[in-house]
Amino acid sequence: MTYAAPIADMRFALEACADLWRLRERYPDLDADLLTAILDGAGALAAETLAPINRSGDRAGVTLEGDVVRAAPGFREAYEAFKAGGWQGLAADPAYGGQGLPRAVALAVMETVHSANMSFGLLPMLTLGAIEALEQHGAPDQKALYLEKLISGEWTGTMNLTEPQAGSDLGALTTKAVPQADGSYAISGQKIFITWGEHDLAPNIIHLVLARIEGAPAGSKGISMFIVPKFRDADGARNGVRCIGVEEKMGIHASPTCTLAYEGAQGWLIGEENRGLAAMFTMMNAARLNVGMEGVAVAEAACQKALAYARERKQGGRPIIDYPDVKRMLMTMRAKIQAGRAICYACAVAADAGDKAMEDLLTPIAKAWGTDLGVECASLGVQVHGGMGFVEEGGAAQFYRDARIAPIYEGANGIQAIDLYGRKLLGDRGEAMRRLIEEAVIVGENYADRQVSDRLVAAAGVLRDATSYRLTAARDNALAGASDYLALAGDVIGAMLLARGLSREPSDEQARLLRFLAETTLTRASGRSAAIKIGAEALADASY
Amino acid sequence: MTYAAPIADMRFALEACADLWRLRERYPDLDADLLTAILDGAGALAAETLAPINRSGDRAGVTLEGDVVRAAPGFREAYEAFKAGGWQGLAADPAYGGQGLPRAVALAVMETVHSANMSFGLLPMLTLGAIEALEQHGAPDQKALYLEKLISGEWTGTMNLTEPQAGSDLGALTTKAVPQADGSYAISGQKIFITWGEHDLAPNIIHLVLARIEGAPAGSKGISMFIVPKFRDADGARNGVRCIGVEEKMGIHASPTCTLAYEGAQGWLIGEENRGLAAMFTMMNAARLNVGMEGVAVAEAACQKALAYARERKQGGRPIIDYPDVKRMLMTMRAKIQAGRAICYACAVAADAGDKAMEDLLTPIAKAWGTDLGVECASLGVQVHGGMGFVEEGGAAQFYRDARIAPIYEGANGIQAIDLYGRKLLGDRGEAMRRLIEEAVIVGENYADRQVSDRLVAAAGVLRDATSYRLTAARDNALAGASDYLALAGDVIGAMLLARGLSREPSDEQARLLRFLAETTLTRASGRSAAIKIGAEALADASY
Repeated sequence: MTYAAPIADMRFALEACADLWRLRERYPDLDADLLTAILDGAGALAAETLAPINRSGDRAGVTLEGDVVRAAPGFREAYEAFKAGGWQGLAADPAYGGQGLPRAVALAVMETVHSANMSFGLLPMLTLGAIEALEQHGAPDQKALYLEKLISGEWTGTMNLTEPQAGSDLGALTTKAVPQADGSYAISGQKIFITWGEHDLAPNIIHLVLARIEGAPAGSKGISMFIVPKFRDADGARNGVRCIGVEEKMGIHASPTCTLAYEGAQGWLIGEENRGLAAMFTMMNAARLNVGMEGVAVAEAACQKALAYARERKQGGRPIIDYPDVKRMLMTMRAKIQAGRAICYACAVAADAGDKAMEDLLTPIAKAWGTDLGVECASLGVQVHGGMGFVEEGGAAQFYRDARIAPIYEGANGIQAIDLYGRKLLGDRGEAMRRLIEEAVIVGENYADRQVSDRLVAAAGVLRDATSYRLTAARDNALAGASDYLALAGDVIGAMLLARGLSREPSDEQARLLRFLAETTLTRASGRSAAIKIGAEALADASY
Repeated sequence: MTYAAPIADMRFALEACADLWRLRERYPDLDADLLTAILDGAGALAAETLAPINRSGDRAGVTLEGDVVRAAPGFREAYEAFKAGGWQGLAADPAYGGQGLPRAVALAVMETVHSANMSFGLLPMLTLGAIEALEQHGAPDQKALYLEKLISGEWTGTMNLTEPQAGSDLGALTTKAVPQADGSYAISGQKIFITWGEHDLAPNIIHLVLARIEGAPAGSKGISMFIVPKFRDADGARNGVRCIGVEEKMGIHASPTCTLAYEGAQGWLIGEENRGLAAMFTMMNAARLNVGMEGVAVAEAACQKALAYARERKQGGRPIIDYPDVKRMLMTMRAKIQAGRAICYACAVAADAGDKAMEDLLTPIAKAWGTDLGVECASLGVQVHGGMGFVEEGGAAQFYRDARIAPIYEGANGIQAIDLYGRKLLGDRGEAMRRLIEEAVIVGENYADRQVSDRLVAAAGVLRDATSYRLTAARDNALAGASDYLALAGDVIGAMLLARGLSREPSDEQARLLRFLAETTLTRASGRSAAIKIGAEALADASY
């Protein structure tokens, strides 16, 4: 069995749930025919070119020879095909060769890429981050130098944040930038966990690097962002950045996770001095949404594989899909995937529509809810396979191993929860969340199936209470409930988006998914409420 | 950081929660001093001998040379130490060299073994299954031939059930047994997924094999159990059973998972003709409880590792354990582990006390709730480690990979749920469950902390309703809710056992674990109730 892009589910989530066509005025070139062509084309690339090298890439992994990283067999050809299709620049600035389409459409394309081959998908995802950082913070000459080649996919990009002592706490980073006479900086330090930080698929790699200019303030207020190309622009010479190690990981074996040593590498400041963290967050926000999508995507791949196995494998004279408990597992996957997909797409549509508050609110939910879902569904996929799920030959195990990174990178899910429950809710005093809750109540009240309607309205009420609780409770106390709050918000918003989609476009199949979600997920809202309010004192354990 | 047996938690669960000392009359030789000596000794073996070869075993795996399987380095010495300590025979019949102690004590010993090294633990676990099958179903001459050597650990045992087409549906197996003139049978067929089915740690391996005697009825009523030693007793000749393959698995790399080819191997019937499934279930019940324990054990190992990392790793100038979300993850692990431990021990105490109905009821709960917990906690352990959790060097990844098998083998968790919700509840019309629910209400009502008390009584009420619902609903409908019913039962019984323990032996630390469970788990009971009653119609999806 191979992956096939779930075009019908994707279109329902994008058009009916996430309301893509509210972007019609902003993106007059996009119409239904073009959307069809794009999704079909991406689906074909994913199914025919990327999925076939997913398992072989897992087995072969990458190879470090000196400071050169060799990609797994087939990845070069696949990347050439990706580049040739113009997929990297779908949502990029037309002034630099991009197609200027909505990010929501580009995100849907990336869904199929991530489903087919999570290791591969990280390469364009990181390049996209570099493109967005340059578009928003680069000087005109920097844009002129780099954007076109990144947008075409000729060169690729990376994000260099983490250092051994600085993970979630970026303020602790120590990489140094020393100003040079020519206006550039000499960058020295070590960066770890750099995805596709070195490889042989492109002639140049553009590193975006956080570092501290000599004499800058300590902590997060003294961090600047630099652009450090592997090969220098002026003379084409090899720059002073080298890969000195590749991690041996549990999954995404075909994606090189590099340790990069910077030894006086020539770099140029992007944006303002000491404002690097803000610039990096622009880039990270897009990456966070993309990682959330990745979680949904690996869940989709795991679900398709489990579904195919359950149809084929017979026990007791019938396919195992006939057994209620196997059906339950598959429905859990399908329903949650569709909710997660709708959340990710809705976040992208909000970004495209310029609804910044909504984009900001939905980003941590998309990231954390989407990636937790990836792990949960990959695990269910293994379970559906029984013994074959634990054997590597079965293929389900790879999804379980690959999926586990997504709740960790681009800001661990606990950080997302605190971002939502702290910065995002307090930032607008819960205004954007209130809009979503009100829509959940209205959509819920108008939903024809009474039982679903009641569940959605009740869960929205629980979310409203939890939000008020947050806006009034003492800070320390509240943070203990942040992860449960995020989970509750994802449950309610996902169901609301499905209900909203159904109010626009009736579908028996989608209605069944919503009903299943309502009975298995929305019914847990009041239980989550207690966990949200549990408070820090319940966590104070003398035995620690 | 290395594993240390959590003796205080274990003793609280065993003595206070599971009520070990109700066995005083049946086991007069056991007293507190002996228990202390046993648990300390087992803990030392686990920490000093088994834990140090856990990671190296994962990396080295096993080697198949021809039909010989070589264990990972260090496993031979470890097995010699295990054997020398007399650990295999702790609960076995003194007539054959066993120590005749309660199974509950042997189970606690196995907990430490599984925590330290899950791959290793499978070897004595399977031998234990063979010992119990022989003790209960073997003829006197069979006992005389095999028991002593199995109980001493000189020989090891296996269970041979699965065939390529016969997994959950054992009735479909086709391995043949042809009667011979000397009263033995010639066994031919192929068995897969045979744990420690071949290895070089013992001079003989005793296979218990399900096969069909020529002319026996089709389906599960024509299956008999045979004993097939690797080396024959009469002449010491190599028997016709060979390892023809070893699975490449996601985890438990140091435990060989073998494909065994039987080609006219000499075997002897155990128990009655065509009653093999019943005999195998005796053996499987013990194995199921042990696998549940294994889930709890791997969770404990993951928790200890995460706790050590969280104390050591600093971000923002303080150890990450100071952050509420990290605390939440660690408390989730600790609280659920203690509940799961209490359930497993209580199941063993019920077995020792001869309370068959309670043992039968608790077995599928221990297996499924314990192993789901293993996966959940291993995943949380990875998350606490952040990026280091995904890197193999960090060690957390191995627990995540290893833990995933436990919900699958010895009867997939969906099968356990159906066993509980079908056979076990219907078998005694819910009588044993009613006893547990009533105890939950009484213990809950008498519990001093009002909030915990209310939560426990309310959740017990939900379980009572769900049980009545099951006993009156139509069968097909009900099975769709079996897994949620089992999860609810585990939540309530685990909390009840902790509350029961606290009523006997006050402990601030254990009380905090119960309070955390009450707020995060018992509060979800009513949500589970809806999922239990969801019914088959919600699962009927036209798209399948």
